[in-house]
Amino acid sequence: MTQRTVFFVSDHSGVTAETLGHSLIAQFDALDFTKITVPFVSTVDKAKRAAANINTAARVQGSPPIVFSTLVKEDVRATVREIVEETDALFLDFFDSFLGPLEKEFGHKSQHAMGVSHGIQNYREYDRRIEAMNFALAHDDGSNLTGYGQADLVLVGVSRSGKTPTCLYLALQYGVFAANYPLAGSDLEERRIPPPLFDHRDKIHGLTIEPRRLRELRRARGIGRRYASPRQVSFETRRAQSLFERLDIPFVDATRCSIEELASRILDATRLERRTTS
Amino acid sequence: MTQRTVFFVSDHSGVTAETLGHSLIAQFDALDFTKITVPFVSTVDKAKRAAANINTAARVQGSPPIVFSTLVKEDVRATVREIVEETDALFLDFFDSFLGPLEKEFGHKSQHAMGVSHGIQNYREYDRRIEAMNFALAHDDGSNLTGYGQADLVLVGVSRSGKTPTCLYLALQYGVFAANYPLAGSDLEERRIPPPLFDHRDKIHGLTIEPRRLRELRRARGIGRRYASPRQVSFETRRAQSLFERLDIPFVDATRCSIEELASRILDATRLERRTTS
Repeated sequence: MTQRTVFFVSDHSGVTAETLGHSLIAQFDALDFTKITVPFVSTVDKAKRAAANINTAARVQGSPPIVFSTLVKEDVRATVREIVEETDALFLDFFDSFLGPLEKEFGHKSQHAMGVSHGIQNYREYDRRIEAMNFALAHDDGSNLTGYGQADLVLVGVSRSGKTPTCLYLALQYGVFAANYPLAGSDLEERRIPPPLFDHRDKIHGLTIEPRRLRELRRARGIGRRYASPRQVSFETRRAQSLFERLDIPFVDATRCSIEELASRILDATRLERRTTS
Repeated sequence: MTQRTVFFVSDHSGVTAETLGHSLIAQFDALDFTKITVPFVSTVDKAKRAAANINTAARVQGSPPIVFSTLVKEDVRATVREIVEETDALFLDFFDSFLGPLEKEFGHKSQHAMGVSHGIQNYREYDRRIEAMNFALAHDDGSNLTGYGQADLVLVGVSRSGKTPTCLYLALQYGVFAANYPLAGSDLEERRIPPPLFDHRDKIHGLTIEPRRLRELRRARGIGRRYASPRQVSFETRRAQSLFERLDIPFVDATRCSIEELASRILDATRLERRTTS
């Protein structure tokens, strides 16, 4: 397999450069990539050092590197580009490609300011994401029955169906207040809404999962044989799905969905606002 | 303030389109943006419906929309582009701009496959992120003293300095196993490494924070006056910083850093691998 080295160069945290670069190289699965993030390249001096390191790595590997950049300041960007192009690097700059058309459309020059995307621009918005995360932690797995009035949504599903990571992701990425409650015992047997959620029915969203995947996840946890047994897992998954259908509760299947996808599907279905700051 | 509507159109979760689009419009703070995510546009039929909705919204608002797209399939992308350009939308597609140069560089056609970026491509890698999150939850705030051997790092800092969100973000975004332990009481007074961490000194990373910001965060929590008093906050922040300096523990200042920045700075300093799948 051909091996190539990819650099994500940023004047800040590197999250945007990583997101861009990953989504592009994921389209070439015949190649094998070594990925290196080079964050906080905020001055021309740092740019010179970072670019020299990239060139050294390129010479060691013997093939030209790919450099995805989200460098906002023109002098920093030009410095990196100039130096890495000495080793025939492919230099792709995100802002360079898109700020021009946007400036023309808006009739405004952009600020060319560093770190405005994943920094703290607005403490109120930022603190809301942190509050949302604290809310998710405090209302995880039915641990606190008093705060559902404040919740944007309450995710329900059987143990290990993905409730906790989805709620935390909804909080950190979108500032959404998501509680979660486990489906188990007599709630599953009687296919009823868990009593603590009676007054919050309109906020309930379900997670289903296929038995095979759930067994895998439960086995990894290693807490007793019955918990991951085919019979138990099949009973729980069937009952949960039937509960959602019978009571007309919207639900999404977690079997082949990453947490990003689950979060997006749930927001799409509930029409909750995505309070993104990043 | 000029008001413009921005659409993030994706054949999948929309996370990539949102991240990239946000980082661009953040460069224009003289404008006011309404942001709408249109995920799961995976077929030509869905493309027609999505584009028609965008045009309706544009006509209501009276100004041309900006459409950021990460549509991978060419027919879907062309359908959206053609329809939204009827209302003079500015259509910017991320793959369109960069896949060409990459295909040329690699001498390979790309797969044009949908959802490879934030989907589950590789269960082992994906499950590792979820395990990392479970680890962070199980080892939050000193709640479990037995697992530090498995940790990639142990974050320490005073209450509300940002340990928990940073650990969860490191887990969800980078698959890093991050525990955290609170600095308080006699550990602060004596400026010593908390005893449960004696054997894991090389994994410790500190968080500092300015007193003013910490008071704000603690007041919001509302658990007693002393907790957020100037005297207490000033004592704790000073002692924590002095502890890190005295014992030569690397630390990062959380005062003006978002969790994305904190995570990135810590990974940079510890040289831990970013096990990104997204």
